[in-house]
Amino acid sequence: MAKFQKNEIQRLVNNVNKNEFSTMNRRTALEKITLLAAASALPNFIGAKAIENKHLPIAVAGNRAPLRKIATEEAFNIPEIADAIMDVVRRGGKNLDLMLLKQIYSAPRSFTSDAQLQNNQESNRDKANLVTLPKLLDIDKIRLADMDANGVDMHLLSLTMPGVQILKRETAIKLAELCNDRLSQAVRLHPTRFAGLGCFAPQDPKSAVQEMDRAINHLKLNGFIVNSHTENQYLDNPKFWPILEAAEALGAPLYIHPRAPSNGMAAPFRDYRIEGSIWGYGIETGTHIVRLIFSGVLDRFPKLQIVIGHMGEALPFWLSRLDFMGAPGARAGRKNQLKPSEYFQRNIAITTSGVEDPLALRFCIDKIGVDRIMWAIDYPYQPTAPAVAFIESAPLTEAEREKIAYINAERIFKIKK
Amino acid sequence: MAKFQKNEIQRLVNNVNKNEFSTMNRRTALEKITLLAAASALPNFIGAKAIENKHLPIAVAGNRAPLRKIATEEAFNIPEIADAIMDVVRRGGKNLDLMLLKQIYSAPRSFTSDAQLQNNQESNRDKANLVTLPKLLDIDKIRLADMDANGVDMHLLSLTMPGVQILKRETAIKLAELCNDRLSQAVRLHPTRFAGLGCFAPQDPKSAVQEMDRAINHLKLNGFIVNSHTENQYLDNPKFWPILEAAEALGAPLYIHPRAPSNGMAAPFRDYRIEGSIWGYGIETGTHIVRLIFSGVLDRFPKLQIVIGHMGEALPFWLSRLDFMGAPGARAGRKNQLKPSEYFQRNIAITTSGVEDPLALRFCIDKIGVDRIMWAIDYPYQPTAPAVAFIESAPLTEAEREKIAYINAERIFKIKK
Repeated sequence: MAKFQKNEIQRLVNNVNKNEFSTMNRRTALEKITLLAAASALPNFIGAKAIENKHLPIAVAGNRAPLRKIATEEAFNIPEIADAIMDVVRRGGKNLDLMLLKQIYSAPRSFTSDAQLQNNQESNRDKANLVTLPKLLDIDKIRLADMDANGVDMHLLSLTMPGVQILKRETAIKLAELCNDRLSQAVRLHPTRFAGLGCFAPQDPKSAVQEMDRAINHLKLNGFIVNSHTENQYLDNPKFWPILEAAEALGAPLYIHPRAPSNGMAAPFRDYRIEGSIWGYGIETGTHIVRLIFSGVLDRFPKLQIVIGHMGEALPFWLSRLDFMGAPGARAGRKNQLKPSEYFQRNIAITTSGVEDPLALRFCIDKIGVDRIMWAIDYPYQPTAPAVAFIESAPLTEAEREKIAYINAERIFKIKK
Repeated sequence: MAKFQKNEIQRLVNNVNKNEFSTMNRRTALEKITLLAAASALPNFIGAKAIENKHLPIAVAGNRAPLRKIATEEAFNIPEIADAIMDVVRRGGKNLDLMLLKQIYSAPRSFTSDAQLQNNQESNRDKANLVTLPKLLDIDKIRLADMDANGVDMHLLSLTMPGVQILKRETAIKLAELCNDRLSQAVRLHPTRFAGLGCFAPQDPKSAVQEMDRAINHLKLNGFIVNSHTENQYLDNPKFWPILEAAEALGAPLYIHPRAPSNGMAAPFRDYRIEGSIWGYGIETGTHIVRLIFSGVLDRFPKLQIVIGHMGEALPFWLSRLDFMGAPGARAGRKNQLKPSEYFQRNIAITTSGVEDPLALRFCIDKIGVDRIMWAIDYPYQPTAPAVAFIESAPLTEAEREKIAYINAERIFKIKK
């Protein structure tokens, strides 16, 4: 790794400052920064002390004081759920998540060589999946080193997709409890480094509500994660209303994270590996939110707070059309009492996870307001360094940068300052 | 209609200039402008002379010379295809387009009262559908009056969705020819007011290719319209490759217009009337383009020109993520040889149809470049006046405004200057 020199880092960082980040050179720059940051981080991964230049992204900001950074869509898993998911993978079926899950969960659970580590930084994402599982299963070794190396203060942890929602009901209920216990333990061990979103089994709304209460009132977690559809049904379905009611009553945000499209919409996504983060995730999750809006459930639970990732799954871009076409009463069958943009003002916040595009960020600030946008990495599916470089260097006022980096997260997820 | 005074028009127009268009008052402003423009246009609809103030949007531009405006996604139909669609509606089935088609094609074919005309301007879009059919079936009466009243120079006409693609093969072939003959006749009658996109029956690629050749070389049309999937299959399917090859060889752009999601992805769109222009159309068409990109057909037909409406069906917003996730070779199963954004530079242009959002327009200019963006109204599904006010008043340089309003359309569709 010695071939990466500090002056090369500085040159790359200068390019970021010049906003070439958003131009034709963006991908190249990202790849280079990722590689360089990986080079910086590797000694931590294998147990050595953090190297001198560990705060690469701080350099991006010039003389500014260190920016507090709370990353809000950061995934983990526990071995017991990994086992259960592998069982589902072995059984097979038409669930569209299985393509990716098979890649990730068939891989070794721990790093065995430097060669594997380096694979993670290559452009070929199939290879990258070979080293995702060890990072998911780790809480305070690889992860904390990566956070330290990149100047990340806190991960808001959440059980990775598709959570327990792909498991059989009884297993899902049991493993959600175990997962929340483990998560709460990690947060207690590292209260300044981790916060957490509890999971639950929507397959059984009654027990889900009990677990939601325990997660907030007993385990002191910061909200909930749900991975879009459950058994091909969406949260507007009345059977799930107790879950929405509980989230509202507990004052705890519900992060609606992607998973691959439900079976009823899966067909065109089965080719060319477009089912996942590249396209299907956003379509699945965006459609979920559109259903919530036009089903009227956000009128039934007016204080419910929903968070969606990936720069709002493109909904901010669609918002003017949604408003124009979707005024209350525009069509029989729709039940929304407000304009879609009014729900964004009241019920919906977004995170930047995996969309490190200054133009898209500026668009979202102008469209839905800076107070409803939070920074995220999407660790370990996305590399940390470009996400950090993005929030450190995006063309924002310092007030905007601080809101997005941590202030909004502290408020929305009730994270201790 | 006398209650709408010129000073009120001027006040509204001033508000547009102040860019309040994009703020909280946008919907209200749009509704008012639409109503006022309708008031201006009505005398034309019923045969009277154009009223003095017919060029309302020109006033928006202050002292600037009149802006040439070519609208590029403007729908029409012919009675024979309307009959055939009504037959399909009567047979029923699970095709998701049927919800909207039933509303539109069950309505009377001609205006019968002023009351109906006024319904078209109400926010309730179900009522608006009652007066869509007469406007679709008209070429040179209601339409030309609406164009005159709003200062629109030209409609690039195209057979309305779902075209002949919903019909049985033999019927589709025959009616596509008839439709192209009628279209070419309208263009010959009004060569400065109309240009046209030919249709074809993808159900039968061999005859489609013959009709495509006739449409360009004999009828002198300007390109082609296809309404996304045909019998639930997309244009990346090898059976459709002769169509892509013909479009490329003829140097004629292929406008991929929305229709409701194909059966294989329809399930979550069946509730709350989210299947159409409000959400399903964009998802269907965006997914179609994503399939074309990752199937590699744009490498097979590198000169193929594709046009998509509705501000690019949100693909420009997704482009940084598509690039990050979708580099060539990123996953087995994908066949793209270029980055997604490189296809946008080479093969894909967008129109503004129905997305009158200055923020979204600016985003797209910054992301894909002003040379690949064209103005459109989406007549008669969208009102003309707000679309005109949008292109006249959006915060653009005059060079940008002219490119979007007509220069790009003249180049891409080979429209006579």
